[in-house]
Amino acid sequence: MSVTIAPIGESLPAYLASKSYSKIVLLADTHTRKHCYPLVKLFLPKHELIVVLPGEQHKNLATCEQIWGVMTNAQLDRHALMLNLGGGVIGDMGGFCAATYKRGIDFVQIPTTLLSQVDASVGGKLGIDFQGFKNHLGVFTLPKNVLIDASFLQTLSYVELRSGFAEIIKHCLIADADKWEEIRKKDFEEQNWPDLIAHSVEIKKKVVAEDPTEQGLRKILNFGHTIGHAVETYFLSKPPKQRLLHGEAIAAGMIMETFVAYRKKMVDLQTLEQVEEFIFSVYGKAPISMSDVPTIIALAQQDKKNRGGELRFSLLDKIGHCGYDIKVTAAEIQQAVAYYVG
Amino acid sequence: MSVTIAPIGESLPAYLASKSYSKIVLLADTHTRKHCYPLVKLFLPKHELIVVLPGEQHKNLATCEQIWGVMTNAQLDRHALMLNLGGGVIGDMGGFCAATYKRGIDFVQIPTTLLSQVDASVGGKLGIDFQGFKNHLGVFTLPKNVLIDASFLQTLSYVELRSGFAEIIKHCLIADADKWEEIRKKDFEEQNWPDLIAHSVEIKKKVVAEDPTEQGLRKILNFGHTIGHAVETYFLSKPPKQRLLHGEAIAAGMIMETFVAYRKKMVDLQTLEQVEEFIFSVYGKAPISMSDVPTIIALAQQDKKNRGGELRFSLLDKIGHCGYDIKVTAAEIQQAVAYYVG
Repeated sequence: MSVTIAPIGESLPAYLASKSYSKIVLLADTHTRKHCYPLVKLFLPKHELIVVLPGEQHKNLATCEQIWGVMTNAQLDRHALMLNLGGGVIGDMGGFCAATYKRGIDFVQIPTTLLSQVDASVGGKLGIDFQGFKNHLGVFTLPKNVLIDASFLQTLSYVELRSGFAEIIKHCLIADADKWEEIRKKDFEEQNWPDLIAHSVEIKKKVVAEDPTEQGLRKILNFGHTIGHAVETYFLSKPPKQRLLHGEAIAAGMIMETFVAYRKKMVDLQTLEQVEEFIFSVYGKAPISMSDVPTIIALAQQDKKNRGGELRFSLLDKIGHCGYDIKVTAAEIQQAVAYYVG
Repeated sequence: MSVTIAPIGESLPAYLASKSYSKIVLLADTHTRKHCYPLVKLFLPKHELIVVLPGEQHKNLATCEQIWGVMTNAQLDRHALMLNLGGGVIGDMGGFCAATYKRGIDFVQIPTTLLSQVDASVGGKLGIDFQGFKNHLGVFTLPKNVLIDASFLQTLSYVELRSGFAEIIKHCLIADADKWEEIRKKDFEEQNWPDLIAHSVEIKKKVVAEDPTEQGLRKILNFGHTIGHAVETYFLSKPPKQRLLHGEAIAAGMIMETFVAYRKKMVDLQTLEQVEEFIFSVYGKAPISMSDVPTIIALAQQDKKNRGGELRFSLLDKIGHCGYDIKVTAAEIQQAVAYYVG
């Protein structure tokens, strides 16, 4: 899998010059059409533009039907290219549409959020939500390239940037204790984004290359995500202003899952406190109450990583290392959420 | 890819004993539930049954949503197994649903028609129709096994059996001149189905193994299918009783595409006449008229094998051998249909 970290004005023309596509289609949402597309289109030949509504609530089959419909009307053949310009939603959904159109055409991810640059765009996990379950339908298909331009981060709000930082924190916690020491000693505003993007991409590429379809090792990337996804999904049912961004939910999930690891004696109290202290300093505490817990547990039980009804987690066994396929009971989740709620 | 030709009472228990699935779901249509499921369920442990309406007109996203919905409600995890009991529609659509559910669960094809036993169940092409285009959305994913029981052929009508025979004819024409001599000298009623099934499966397995995602050689399996699919799709717009079965359309397509090869001086007149004579003797002439031709050409231009608007065909260069990626013009298709119509 190729990942190119460079200004889009260099990486995109170089990629296109190396290939010969029959047509090009670019998928954007209304945000990235406004803020990112004007730059990208300078470096594109004639193409079709597909614009969809932004946000996780549109990452569904209905939007896919819209996208596939435009692709069909444009008479795209199997030798066409799809460019996905946006955050994780656009990359996951556009990639899924490309990977299933005529049994698969080439696609290239151009991630525009920190979150998608350090996580979603790398690794070939594609998908959409279904009946309220996140990424419930999808495939594993690698993009032909991922073109990362850090200048797109200037289009992001503070909370969006902070959301992406959660996956950087995760990569340090599961795979690089030294980098963890480095980031936790800096304020959020002092972080070096280009350096951290390259660092996260390297870790993710390495893990994915060893286990592309998540039979084993790749599961460590799910640290924080079993409870985190359940928390994120739970908040989807709330009014838009009360929802959590993905990284905010994962940040909470990492604290709770580190608590589970602590209760299982996999990490010591000092580790739990260190993780908790840094994450709280960046994100504060998510507005979860004890009455939310049964629903969050029920959602965690739908997680794709489970096996035969048993919950399986990826848990730290020390800073910089993560285990996987670890059985966790509903009672342990309950204790962890209770600890977080405090 | 494993293909097991044996009574289902032997092959299914042996397969299940070799694996450890968290749950089993079986997809059938109302026909196979009635005629085939009573036998199959004797050899199955506890399972979920999903029943959909039969026929190509239900091979679409709406039916997939129904299937994914049952899978979700049954809380199938990634370690579940899906069995697809039926013809090509059930195999293609059930396989697609399995390959995209939680980014892919295991599935096993149990083809119940001659057509699906000798063609669709082998090779991992999965998909559904979209906006009137056949197999427009789909993926390449191999089933874990294909369990072929020739006794299911007893549930088929004469026209269904004859439809499947078209793919056997195709396999002989593109890959085995001796077998072509053998089948063309027998009446339809004298054909040895178990022998021909094994023969077709071997040819298809070999071709697919060399080129799983149809970058090159696998395209020879499309002989007869570019015009044939267009003819089949065209008849879909007619009342059910006037439609053509897949094999009936492919039989017509093979004659027309052999005519294209003849006009391109790839085969001689004797070959054209031999192909035409045998196919007409089995299938008669499909009710195509010259006024249908523009629509059929337009449909052929949507074929997935085309490149940048140019039509690409797989054409015989002699009995038992087939070329691919051969440019064909709209005028050549017109001549071929005119020849067929006579």
